[in-house]
Amino acid sequence: MAIRIGILGYGNLGKGIECAIKQNSDMELVAVFTRRAPESVKILTPGVSVYSVDEAVSKKDEIDVLILCGGSATDLPVQTPEYAKYFNVVDSFDTHAKIPEHFANVDESAKANGKVAMISVGWDPGMFSLNRLYANAILPDGKDYTFWGKGVSQGHSDAIRRVEGVKDGKQYTIPVDSALEAVRSGSNPELTTRQKHIRECFVVAEEGADLAKIEQEIKSMPNYFADYDTIVNFISEEDLKANHSGIPHGGFVIRSGQTGWDGEHKHIVEYSLKLDSNPEFTASVIVAYARAAYRMQKEGQTGCKTVFDVAPAYLSPCSAEDLRAHLL
Amino acid sequence: MAIRIGILGYGNLGKGIECAIKQNSDMELVAVFTRRAPESVKILTPGVSVYSVDEAVSKKDEIDVLILCGGSATDLPVQTPEYAKYFNVVDSFDTHAKIPEHFANVDESAKANGKVAMISVGWDPGMFSLNRLYANAILPDGKDYTFWGKGVSQGHSDAIRRVEGVKDGKQYTIPVDSALEAVRSGSNPELTTRQKHIRECFVVAEEGADLAKIEQEIKSMPNYFADYDTIVNFISEEDLKANHSGIPHGGFVIRSGQTGWDGEHKHIVEYSLKLDSNPEFTASVIVAYARAAYRMQKEGQTGCKTVFDVAPAYLSPCSAEDLRAHLL
Repeated sequence: MAIRIGILGYGNLGKGIECAIKQNSDMELVAVFTRRAPESVKILTPGVSVYSVDEAVSKKDEIDVLILCGGSATDLPVQTPEYAKYFNVVDSFDTHAKIPEHFANVDESAKANGKVAMISVGWDPGMFSLNRLYANAILPDGKDYTFWGKGVSQGHSDAIRRVEGVKDGKQYTIPVDSALEAVRSGSNPELTTRQKHIRECFVVAEEGADLAKIEQEIKSMPNYFADYDTIVNFISEEDLKANHSGIPHGGFVIRSGQTGWDGEHKHIVEYSLKLDSNPEFTASVIVAYARAAYRMQKEGQTGCKTVFDVAPAYLSPCSAEDLRAHLL
Repeated sequence: MAIRIGILGYGNLGKGIECAIKQNSDMELVAVFTRRAPESVKILTPGVSVYSVDEAVSKKDEIDVLILCGGSATDLPVQTPEYAKYFNVVDSFDTHAKIPEHFANVDESAKANGKVAMISVGWDPGMFSLNRLYANAILPDGKDYTFWGKGVSQGHSDAIRRVEGVKDGKQYTIPVDSALEAVRSGSNPELTTRQKHIRECFVVAEEGADLAKIEQEIKSMPNYFADYDTIVNFISEEDLKANHSGIPHGGFVIRSGQTGWDGEHKHIVEYSLKLDSNPEFTASVIVAYARAAYRMQKEGQTGCKTVFDVAPAYLSPCSAEDLRAHLL
């Protein structure tokens, strides 16, 4: 019998979950819940209904894992502890600094109700975190580097669009090649924010707007752009639509470390992602962890879990015997 | 209290384990066991004794994890099931085809005696296997590629040295750049053995040997070289010692996959290692899994485990809280 999945929130991530379920024959989408008017939400999977979020709890016996696709700022801090009372859940909470607090809230709720709740699943936090942990455990004497991109940063694109005179815009985070090469060489460089990433903006200005003023305002924006070398390109609305409508992303996690009695041997461990679609890849990670959540709860585990707590075998639809014979 | 480690077998791997223990303050080397005359084996750690392998079992109450550093061909198939009766053990059994059989033997012995036995720990099998599993679980619709090198292959170097007229030799396995680039492009190429790797040999010939005959014999050797483009370089003994005495290795695990309702988005997941010392890196992985073996047995788990069965948090000396706060 397939693992029955519910999706709460049908934006880019929710749609990505729907697509990922289609690729996994041991999983089945049974319901999508939305805060919008259900009849206004069209999904891709034939025969599956869209319900108001108010109906979610009433369907708890028909769903093995509920995947929460809300935002980290205001949705998930409320939703994850609440729905972990009724469902095994997975979320992609990505406010790194608030993970300990979120974990505590979710753990209490999930434990009290015998559910497994996986938080902060995706690629960062998620696969990047895992690779930081593995490489740190293997090479305790070393240095970590994380680079992001080339990819679209939603937060920085939003920041551009708030500038006066800007009609639309997209921002790409780009790792600096020479910094990547320095890290790969094993020289353990100290890198400033500016040395690690470039920010490139594609901006559609309102008619008659002062372009020099917009460029200056973007480049000097604290937190977002002031600490970076920022490139501002003004383009037409058509150009933005034709060439910048995707949501690619990716990045690199590198650990450079030493072994030997006197640290005489160097090692570089590198993990990288090159993603055409950030939300679809994130969704694909989440669906694998939904499988793990279901299995772990079936075995009697409860409480809040992160990717650090999940033995890799739980993620695969293959049996332990098959994994040992074919992937080990 | 530190985790008390014993090492059985003091070759390159055993010495690497000793060095790795020095880098991990929660671990302590308590004994080295050898088949050689103990007084002939000099180790690096002050105050630690070398014993005959015959004394190992008598020290079972002083050792939390015994690390088995023998070979996969004849040592480990016997040693791992035997010592799992008395100790938590870790081995680096790397005969991929025989893993299921080895697992069954070790599992029976470890379970019957309440021990945890980790097998096939290292980087391939080991970290490469993990990365194959993760990427397959995330991207079920895709294709795996593993490249090895640039690095020294012990088996192929031994094969060269068996050729008549060869005094010494070293073989490097080198991934073909254009094949790597084709894989990274997402084109999912079908690659033959010859297209993926080059084999480069550095050979010291006996005086007066027929070089053309040696080169021909190496290049046509079935299984080892016949299916590859092989380069044979004749060099002096001094050159071999000066420039080819290291044991570097590494490689790449790449999965290229698709997501989206119609597979319209491509993704590349890549894990790579660049290692100055193959045995020291392998040893560093093993020591992290020794920590996991100790903890898992303390929690009441028993039996044979592989890297697939170990939740990542067990590998780190940090607490779950610290990991969530700093690495997630």
